[in-house]
Formats: sequence, structure tokens, C-alpha cells
Amino acid sequence: MSKSMFADWINPSFVLSPERTFSYEDREKPAVQSPRDVVVQIVATGLCGSDVHYWLHGAIGQYVVDKPIVLGHESAGIVVDRGSDATDLQVGDRVALEPGIACNSCDECRRGAYNLCPGMRFAATPPYDGTLAKYYRLPRENVFRLPEALLLRDAALIEPLSIAVHVCRLAGSMHGKSVAIFGAGPVGQLCANVSSAFGADTVAVSDVVLSRLEFAKEKGASYIYEMTRDSAAQNATALTKKAGLPFGFDIIIDATGAEPCISCGVNALKRGGIFVQAGLGKAEVQFPVGAICDKEATFKGSFRYGPGDYDIAVKLIKSKRVDLGGYVTHEYGFGEAEAAFQNVADRSGVKSVIYGPGVDSKDAIIGALN
Amino acid sequence: MSKSMFADWINPSFVLSPERTFSYEDREKPAVQSPRDVVVQIVATGLCGSDVHYWLHGAIGQYVVDKPIVLGHESAGIVVDRGSDATDLQVGDRVALEPGIACNSCDECRRGAYNLCPGMRFAATPPYDGTLAKYYRLPRENVFRLPEALLLRDAALIEPLSIAVHVCRLAGSMHGKSVAIFGAGPVGQLCANVSSAFGADTVAVSDVVLSRLEFAKEKGASYIYEMTRDSAAQNATALTKKAGLPFGFDIIIDATGAEPCISCGVNALKRGGIFVQAGLGKAEVQFPVGAICDKEATFKGSFRYGPGDYDIAVKLIKSKRVDLGGYVTHEYGFGEAEAAFQNVADRSGVKSVIYGPGVDSKDAIIGALN
Amino acid sequence: MSKSMFADWINPSFVLSPERTFSYEDREKPAVQSPRDVVVQIVATGLCGSDVHYWLHGAIGQYVVDKPIVLGHESAGIVVDRGSDATDLQVGDRVALEPGIACNSCDECRRGAYNLCPGMRFAATPPYDGTLAKYYRLPRENVFRLPEALLLRDAALIEPLSIAVHVCRLAGSMHGKSVAIFGAGPVGQLCANVSSAFGADTVAVSDVVLSRLEFAKEKGASYIYEMTRDSAAQNATALTKKAGLPFGFDIIIDATGAEPCISCGVNALKRGGIFVQAGLGKAEVQFPVGAICDKEATFKGSFRYGPGDYDIAVKLIKSKRVDLGGYVTHEYGFGEAEAAFQNVADRSGVKSVIYGPGVDSKDAIIGALN
Amino acid sequence: MSKSMFADWINPSFVLSPERTFSYEDREKPAVQSPRDVVVQIVATGLCGSDVHYWLHGAIGQYVVDKPIVLGHESAGIVVDRGSDATDLQVGDRVALEPGIACNSCDECRRGAYNLCPGMRFAATPPYDGTLAKYYRLPRENVFRLPEALLLRDAALIEPLSIAVHVCRLAGSMHGKSVAIFGAGPVGQLCANVSSAFGADTVAVSDVVLSRLEFAKEKGASYIYEMTRDSAAQNATALTKKAGLPFGFDIIIDATGAEPCISCGVNALKRGGIFVQAGLGKAEVQFPVGAICDKEATFKGSFRYGPGDYDIAVKLIKSKRVDLGGYVTHEYGFGEAEAAFQNVADRSGVKSVIYGPGVDSKDAIIGALN
Repeated sequence: MSKSMFADWINPSFVLSPERTFSYEDREKPAVQSPRDVVVQIVATGLCGSDVHYWLHGAIGQYVVDKPIVLGHESAGIVVDRGSDATDLQVGDRVALEPGIACNSCDECRRGAYNLCPGMRFAATPPYDGTLAKYYRLPRENVFRLPEALLLRDAALIEPLSIAVHVCRLAGSMHGKSVAIFGAGPVGQLCANVSSAFGADTVAVSDVVLSRLEFAKEKGASYIYEMTRDSAAQNATALTKKAGLPFGFDIIIDATGAEPCISCGVNALKRGGIFVQAGLGKAEVQFPVGAICDKEATFKGSFRYGPGDYDIAVKLIKSKRVDLGGYVTHEYGFGEAEAAFQNVADRSGVKSVIYGPGVDSKDAIIGALN
Repeated sequence: MSKSMFADWINPSFVLSPERTFSYEDREKPAVQSPRDVVVQIVATGLCGSDVHYWLHGAIGQYVVDKPIVLGHESAGIVVDRGSDATDLQVGDRVALEPGIACNSCDECRRGAYNLCPGMRFAATPPYDGTLAKYYRLPRENVFRLPEALLLRDAALIEPLSIAVHVCRLAGSMHGKSVAIFGAGPVGQLCANVSSAFGADTVAVSDVVLSRLEFAKEKGASYIYEMTRDSAAQNATALTKKAGLPFGFDIIIDATGAEPCISCGVNALKRGGIFVQAGLGKAEVQFPVGAICDKEATFKGSFRYGPGDYDIAVKLIKSKRVDLGGYVTHEYGFGEAEAAFQNVADRSGVKSVIYGPGVDSKDAIIGALN
Repeated sequence: MSKSMFADWINPSFVLSPERTFSYEDREKPAVQSPRDVVVQIVATGLCGSDVHYWLHGAIGQYVVDKPIVLGHESAGIVVDRGSDATDLQVGDRVALEPGIACNSCDECRRGAYNLCPGMRFAATPPYDGTLAKYYRLPRENVFRLPEALLLRDAALIEPLSIAVHVCRLAGSMHGKSVAIFGAGPVGQLCANVSSAFGADTVAVSDVVLSRLEFAKEKGASYIYEMTRDSAAQNATALTKKAGLPFGFDIIIDATGAEPCISCGVNALKRGGIFVQAGLGKAEVQFPVGAICDKEATFKGSFRYGPGDYDIAVKLIKSKRVDLGGYVTHEYGFGEAEAAFQNVADRSGVKSVIYGPGVDSKDAIIGALN
Repeated sequence: MSKSMFADWINPSFVLSPERTFSYEDREKPAVQSPRDVVVQIVATGLCGSDVHYWLHGAIGQYVVDKPIVLGHESAGIVVDRGSDATDLQVGDRVALEPGIACNSCDECRRGAYNLCPGMRFAATPPYDGTLAKYYRLPRENVFRLPEALLLRDAALIEPLSIAVHVCRLAGSMHGKSVAIFGAGPVGQLCANVSSAFGADTVAVSDVVLSRLEFAKEKGASYIYEMTRDSAAQNATALTKKAGLPFGFDIIIDATGAEPCISCGVNALKRGGIFVQAGLGKAEVQFPVGAICDKEATFKGSFRYGPGDYDIAVKLIKSKRVDLGGYVTHEYGFGEAEAAFQNVADRSGVKSVIYGPGVDSKDAIIGALN
């Protein structure tokens, strides 16, 4: 990295071009503009499947990379400046960043559903730049102070944890309930952890990759189930039998978007149960709507996170109800960012993290920046 | 009808054989057996698509007509006897019958979801006999006294009205909301009426049959929309444009079970909206799950009716918030029951009603039995 | 009124001094400052008990008139200017004003409870000026376009109607339920109207003033009850007997704040019922907490209005589910404002309205400004 | 105890007379009468304040001991017989008893609120006998199989634990919330344990007895607070200050019924918060209704337990989210029952348990009957 990177008014950024090539640019450092602005130095950013998808495909649905964009939106860092209405934060505070800036004044925002704000500016969703840079500016309500015991590296996982919190809250009260989760990637795993923290009596995790299931088991899943090539109905029967639940699960969470999983999940759902689709899905699937009716089931879509989700995520860590240990399996310096993208594209490990500019070594992180 | 029909201990019944032929049988009149039993003389029974389906196909899903069965479950009549714990009802009371007898002691019943009771005995669902007979016995909680102004003929529609009430309650508060309903058969039409009664600001009804749409318009629909052979997305655009709702409807109710309608409905749904599937569906459909996620929509199956639905249905009639006038388009004597089945099979009119044995003329009904 | 009143940059205002005397002042006309600002010319303002209380007592609880203040917060008017992000409103649009400006970014606002915003700036609550002036500035989300058929005079009642909507929504679904309302002042009357519009099967209104009860009866209350000097329990027995509800009412709304009414209401509440306290109360009352427990009742405080309330209020008028006819019993020109305060202090009529500066005659209002 | 006590058709019972004297009687052993009946041999019964109140005062409110009654309703035991529809239970199964038998067919039962059933037959509430006997008969739905690791002695606490579960569920989601509990008797302590299990971030317990507070601290309370003789407002300020919550607690649970606690609780409640009154209260208290309105708070009465509460209580034990260790501080043989009543009257320890007839020594219990 060039020396200029450390000049105080420069914001080194990792930029994806519309031609899907990466480069480093020195952009202007964001400054406090309104009284509630906070500027954060990024320490660690987790990579998400969507980041990698933009790199590989240049678009997700209607969102197209048609001008250069900075990716990254799962970040933690250190406050370096804040406005006059954000003085409850101190320079030096260790924080997680909620990456979507809502308009706060539309009907959706005002009724408590800011994740559905049509004016949302979400980091790393075109045309809005993400957090793979040295500095990032957000309003006060998007910045969450972290508990001392949490490494900033692991705090990059507060974002997917907030997704899991959102998904699990959509499922309603989990006390004493049985929950089956399809997909043992980071979001599915975190949904399993949050389900336990939210009082689920039984948590079953299904996937096709055994190593992921073993991680789920280590993390406390009651049951793991390796999906077979049998029919959805057969898989559902085997899964419910393994969990000792002849009437099915109270709650299903699908974190795959795969048709066989959705279908199996509906089959494995108890009458009156709730199914939460944790995003990621392809546009259309073959769907057992008859079973939804016969069971009077509720099928909910889930979109990002809303009021209280980040707050609860941070508290789950603080109270040790959720432990992020073991989630970060790969770490990269800012100069190695493309290698991190490649690693996620190769589906290796659980979560890959890229450190911010100037965070040169792991020791430094754990030492000076912890 | 034979003279024996009028003997007090005989229960003339209209019976479907497993070979799908109808016959009249003199069965034993049901008697009060437990203190909460009520015996009702049936005056009018509306025919439902499911009744006709059993006649034409011998089964619905797992429910098979493998021994003779009495069909019919949309009935109103007059109390002729009741047990010692049902004395708040009087002999002679005009009543509607809720046709499903729940066990009342399982977890589903105890938590207020008796429609999901695994021990449910539902009239005209094999192996349980229905109401196309002179007398029928039900527990006290399944019998609802009617307002004076309601004809017993029209009271046969309390059953589908209760379905509509259940569907609309599943949609949550409708005050000031926009509702689009797919399907203008009896259930769809009644959902439109109930939506208005529940405070919906806009009620749009879609169908492919113009005459049905005209009936919906007469009954107060804000907009009617004739579905075209265009794509679901194109129909959704045309529908929301007609209703002046660029962001879509707050609530969608599908009363068709048809894939193009479900797909159009999801397309026409506002972000954060609720979709209620009012049963009837085929087992599987191609389903826009991506849109469900992006919109964070809720898709709910609906199954029959539960606590409070019949009570609200009766009160909607009593308070004139819903008017059943015009729904019964065809009337048949008990001896003409098969003709009624044929008429429904031909999809003629809105609702066909079969009078009970001994209810010989329309005048008699409106006079003596009103 | 002085000629200067009509100069375009002057804002004639009716000001209460800390010494509790009124005067007219020419203040600076508010201008559009931010893109979402809207400036409204006030046509009509209803007087609220709180306005009169500030005049008579100089304070309400912690809110003290310690510097000059403009009162009035129940207003309707005409858009005279709007910012670049509010162009869906046109100059000349007839609108109701929601008088509380929330911060939109605190936790309460973000979770959909902006009425609880600690940073709320509420018109005519010290130190924030109210609407008894020619012009008033509000953000876009506080301005609601009116249906054509509604007189701007009557539109001043959209504010108390929104209170009633908020109260009734706090009571949960009212379909088929019985509701008893204590207090037949404007808020109580409007709660009765909204309860009917929300599907209540029985609406009983209680008060000590017979003329108010007669107005409630004209407006459609199922029952009216004149409270006596008997005990709360005796009044509750008489009220529930009159309404034919031996087990009590599903919902109680108290719009008096008077101890005997609250106590009577809890006595008249059904097991499992909901009681909404519609504000106004004195700080402490003797309260039948034992009955609240035995009945497992829910007692809810109500504070102003929140997301969706104004929108629903306007739609209730547009759909004719609520009719504001007869509510405005006294009308005053801007120069007669003090007489209006005196009239409300004398508890005369239902609602008194003060027209804005330049709205010289009733004819003009109904003609040019309708 | 007489030898006859062990004859198989005799039910030794501990009986309170209307004159408030105790005696032992040999009653007839209850038999299976209906297919869903279960007969349980009682092993341990916890004493509740209400049991002792009947002994000391002969009545609670409208419930009067006007004929001999068996007290006791917090029991665990062993299945000795069951009907043909209860064969999922085995003779020898270790179970907790839910002591209220609902009618299951009234509106309250059918809507999922059987605790409000007007026909409820509740053990040890006149005229219904309680469980201080050798055998007790209940319907299948009132019997809950216990996890192996739980002593039957401690299982007597499943009843008050179910009360705590009911109270905490009434408070809504507790994830990340702050909860203050007034009263550190068994119910208050268990509410604290359940609040933690339900995800509360902060749990503060207040009482006037230091030893109880110390037990709460051992059991995991975040903060304990010794109430002073200062005003409710002063205590509230001190309590919220101690917990670092300047805006107050999200949730208040009062398990005392004492006016100063209720008043302090409302003062310590955050805007928009929920207050659950966990029964026990005197009939009337001075109540800060103004604060309830200003805060738009919800104040809920709580009455016994309803659908799912016992099930969740058992699962909280099984999953070790709640630990009943330390709760039983005093143990009595069946022949020492009156001494147990005296001990509770003296407010000594946390929970006193009386063993059933034939459960002669603690060793036996832990050995043979565990």
C-alpha cells in the first residue's frame, strides 16, 4: 500500500469496476457533515456471498454495477470523529456498523419497518459504496458500541448475526419450540445459535456438507441431518423421525433458497407452524401451497434487519448467549482483498475477513485495535 | 318422499355411495346423548365445491369415500332438542351449524386453534356424515342463534361467510388498507364483503368471468379486474394501475388456488404486505419466492374457521355490515338434491341451496320456518 | 385585524403570555428551509381542553408557559409552499396538520412509536408554538391531503379523531366486540364513532351530562348510560345490565380520567378484556388492581397518535364510516379568539373552532377555501 | 399413620375443616372414570401462600371454606392408572400435575384462555379438593412427564414455575430487554430466573428482605435492590440508577401486590413499557394512572397459567435454562403437614414441601421414587 494511504485526508478504497476488475483508489476521506454523523475507521470486514456475486456476475437482480463501487458491508471499526448530536460516542470507541441508511421519514420507516424503506442507501448495493475502505461515515443510529471481550475481527460477524436475529424474531416466540434450519453456511449456523439463545427446545440443522454439519453440532445443534437425493417428503420424514417429532417442527428456517430444502421444510412443518425464508432464494420455486393451506402454516420472507436487531445481536454476544468463536476461518490484509474474494468464491471455510488499511498484522489488531 | 320421512324417529338422508351414486335412506334420528348435545332439524343446506368434488371424483386428497356418506355441511335449521347443559337454547330457535366437532382437549384445541385439531370430526369429510338429512346432532358450541331478519335459506351462507371471516382475520387489521381478492366465487365474494366490513379502504376483485365481477361490483367492490392471458407481472401492473396503487396492495387474498392468480397476487403485493391463501389450491404451484423475500411479505395458509369466526359472521349479518341478499341463486327441494349437485357442477349462479326433508315449498320456508 | 396581516412575509399570531394574557403579534412568516418542509395557511383550528388549561393555569404538569407561546394544534388549512422533496403536494391542496414533529431517528421513532419520541416538538406544548397563526411549517409526513367533501372547518376535528383512532387501535380488533366508553366530550364521542367504524357490535357511552349522551345516541351509540352517584360497582352492574352483557364488556375506553369512571370501567370489564385510558387523567387514582388480576385484564395508557393514525382518520371520513357533522358547534373569527377560549372554558357545546387570519366570513370559508 | 393408609382402595387425605382445624381422613381412592383420566400417586406437594391463607382466614375473596376441603395444589407424583385414551402415559411415569381442570368447551377455553374458564375446577380452591392426599385424578392434558434429572421433590415447584412462565410470556419478548421484579418470594425469584432464560439483558430484583435478595443474586440476578421507606419516586430513581437505566426498565413484574412496589414499578418503567401484575394483590391501590398514560404503558393482570405454560416450564428445567436447586428449604412427612403450614405462616425459607402418604423418608424419595 502506498504511503499516501496514511495521510489523514485520504480514504484508501478497494474498488470494483463495471468490468469486474478490482483496483485500489485513494478517495476523499468522509467528514462529519451533519450533527448526527459518525466517521469510523474500518478494522475488519467480513465477506458476504453478495459481495462475491457482484464480482463474479456484475449484478444481483435489478442492482447492477454500472459504475465503480466499493464492496463490503459486514464491518467493525473504531470511531474517529462524530458530530455534535452524537457525543454519547467517544473517539476510540470500538463499534459495529449497520450498513443500511434509511430515510427515516417515509411510511415504512415511521411504522417501524425501515428495512423496507424505498429510499434505503445500503452499503455495497449499487450505487452505494461499501466499507472496504479506511473510513466510513454513518448516522449515529447505525453505530453500535461493542462489548470489551469481543475482538473487532469477530465483530465483523455482528452483521450476519443481526440477520439471524431478524429471521428468528420473525418466527415469533421460540420458547419450548422445535426449530429446523436448512443450510449451514454462516447465516444458517447463526440462526441455529440464535434459536438456542431464544429458547428453542430442539434445533436441527440440515445441509449437504458434512463438515458444516459438524460445526453446527459443535456449536450446540440438537440434531444434524445430511440431506439426501431422496424426495422432499422422504427427507422430511427422515428428519422429523431423527428429531423424534412425528407431527413436525414448530418452526422452519430456510437459509439456502434451494427448492428441495424449501419443499422439505414445508413437509417437515407442524400444523400451524411458521416458516421463515432467510433470503437468498432464486426467483421462483415449485412450492407445496396445498400443504401450506392444510397446515394453516405461515410462510414469511425475511429482508435484512430492522429496529432492534443490531442491539439484540450485540447483547447476545455480551451476555455470552451466542459465541462467535470459530466463525472466522480466513483472515486477509487489505492488500490481499482479492484473494479473500477468491476464497469465498471457492466456498472454503465459514467466514473470511479482510482487515482495513493500516491494520497490518493480526497482532496489531488484537493488540492496539482490540 | 315417503310418508315414513315424517315419523319422528326416522332421519331421511341423502347418501352418496362409494360408487358415486346417490340414494335416499331412512336412518335413525340422532338423539341427545350428552348434556351439551343439540339436535337440529335442517332447513337449508348450501352446496360447496367440495361436496360436488366427492360426488364427481370420490375423494379429496387423503379423504376417500370408501363407504356410504351423507354430504352437505353449510346448513341452517331449527332446534328440536337439546341436553341439560344447553338450555340457553330453546326448542324452535333458528340456528346456523358449525360443521366441525373438535376434540377440545388436544394442544391445538387448548391453545385456541381447534381448526387444526387432529381429532376433528368434520361433517361431509369422510368418514363423517354431513347435513343433507332431516336431523343433525352437534355440541352446544357448534350451534349459533340467528338474527330474526335473516332467512334460514340465506343462513346456509353463514358457513362460507365464516370462512371469509377467518381469512380476513388472518390478514390482520384492514383499517385503511387496500385489499385485492382473486376469485369471485362465493368465498371470494364474501371475502370482498368482509374486507369492506373490516374497514378496508380499497377492495379490488379479479376473476375471468365478467358476470361474477359485475356481482362483486354491485356488492360494493371498489374495483373489478378481468384477468387476461398476459403474464402474472403484466396482470399485476394493470391491476395496481387500475386501483391507483403504484406500490401495490397491502393485502392479497387468493380464493382460486390457481397458479397465475397466486403469482399475480405476489407481484401486486406491497412491501411488507400479507397474502392469505384461502384454501382450494392444487398441491404445488410455481411460486415467486424471491419476491416474497424482497418484499418481506407474509404468505399464510387458511384452513376452515376457528374461535370466534362463526360468532363474528352472525354479527356481521345482524349489524347489516354484510348483506347475503342475492347470493342464493338456485333453490332445490330435498327430493331434487341431485339436480342441485349437477347445477353446481355446471358452475351456474352463485350459491345453490337444498331444503331439508319436509320443507316442501319456498313459501313454507319463508313463512313457517323463517 | 391590521392591514399588515395580509403582507406576504408576516405571520399574524395569537400569543399567550406567561402572565396568561392574550395578544396579537406580527411574527415572521415561516419559510421552506429543508426539502421536505411544507408551509400551510391555517384556515381553521379547533380548541382543545389543553389549550384552555394553559390559559387558565399556565402549565400542564411539567410543561410551563414561561415565555410567550402560540396555542392551538387542531388545524386544517391550505398548502402555500413546499420544498423540493414534497412536490407530491401542490400549492392550494387542502390539508390536515399533524401537530407533533418527531426526531425520526431515536429508538422510539425507529421502532414505530414516534409518539413516545423524547425529542418530540409538539405544537402548543411549551416551548413550541402552536397553530393559531396565519402560517405554519411542518415536515411532509405531518401533512395529510383531505377528501373533497370535507369542509376545512370540520377538518379541524381530524386531530381529535386521530386520537380516537389511536385509542381504538390500542384496544385491538373490535370485530363483534362490545365497547363501553366513559365520557362524552369530543374524544369520547369520536371513540364511539370509531368503535362502530371498527366493527364493534355494541357501543355504550356513559356520562353525567344528558345532552352529550343524546348527541352520542344520535351519532349511533347502541346504548347510553347516565352515571349516578352510586358506587362504581353499582354503576357497572346497571350499565352491563342495560347493555345485556352479564359478563361485562370486551373493551372499556375511559375518556374522562375520573376515578369513579375508571373504577366503574374495570368493574364492567369482561375477563380477559382490554381497558384503554384515553389520557386526560389526574396523576393518581384509587384503582381496583385485584379485579385487573382476577380478570387477567390489560390496562393500557394512550398518548397522542402514532404511525398510521392520521391516515386512517382521513380515510374514515372519506369512506363515510365516520361523519364529523354536528361536532363544530361554535365558530369564531381570528379576532374573536379569546371569546372561543372563554366558550370552551364554559364547557359549552361540543367543539369550538377559530378561523385563521384572513378567513373573514363563514361564506368565504365554505366558498373560496373549501 | 394407620395401616389402612396403604390399602389400595383408600385415599389418605389431609383435610381442613370450616373451623380451620386439620385432620387426616381415609377417603375413597379416585378411579379412572373417563378414557382420558389419569390417577397419580402424590409424592411431593409444595405449600403456597394461598393454602396457608385458607387455614388462617378460612377464605380468599369470594372463595370460602364452608365444608371440609383438602388443600395443596403444587404437586408431583407417579402415574398409577390411566384411561384408554391416555396410554401415551405409562404406569410409573414421573409427572407434574397442573391443578386446574377447565371445561374445555366454553368460549374462553376454545379461544385459548382456559385459565379464564368460568367453569374451572381448581384444586384447593373451594369447593374443589386439592392434592394433599395419596392419590389424585386429573385429565390427560393436566399431567406432564418430567425429565429424569429432576427430583420429584423439586418438581413440586413446576407449578409456581408455570406461574412465572405465564407472567413472563404476558410481558412479550424479553430479548435484550431490561426487567425489574418486585418481590423475592418463590414466584418473584422464579420470574427472575425465567426472565433470564427468556433472554432478558438485565434482571433486577427488589425486596425488603436481604436474605431473599442474596438468594436472587446467587441465582443470577444482574442487580438486587433493597427497597427503602423513601417515596416510590425516590426508590424508582435509586433502582434505575443502580441498574444504569436512566430511561427506566422495559418490563416491570410485581410479585408483591404491595402499593409502594406497584407505584415504584410504574415510576421505574420506560415509556412504552409493560408492567405485569403477578397476582397476589390487595383489592385496591393508589395507582399512578397519569404516568401510565404519559408513558403509554401497558399494565397487565396475570391469572394462573394457560396453554403451553406447564410445557415450557418442564422444558426450561430439562434444558437447564432454569435450575430449581435451592428452592426447597423445608421438607415434611405427610404426618407433619400442619408443621409445614406453620412454617410457611412464619415466612421461613423459600419453599416448604410435604411428602405424600407412604413416602416415609427422604432417602426413599430420592431412591425409590426418583
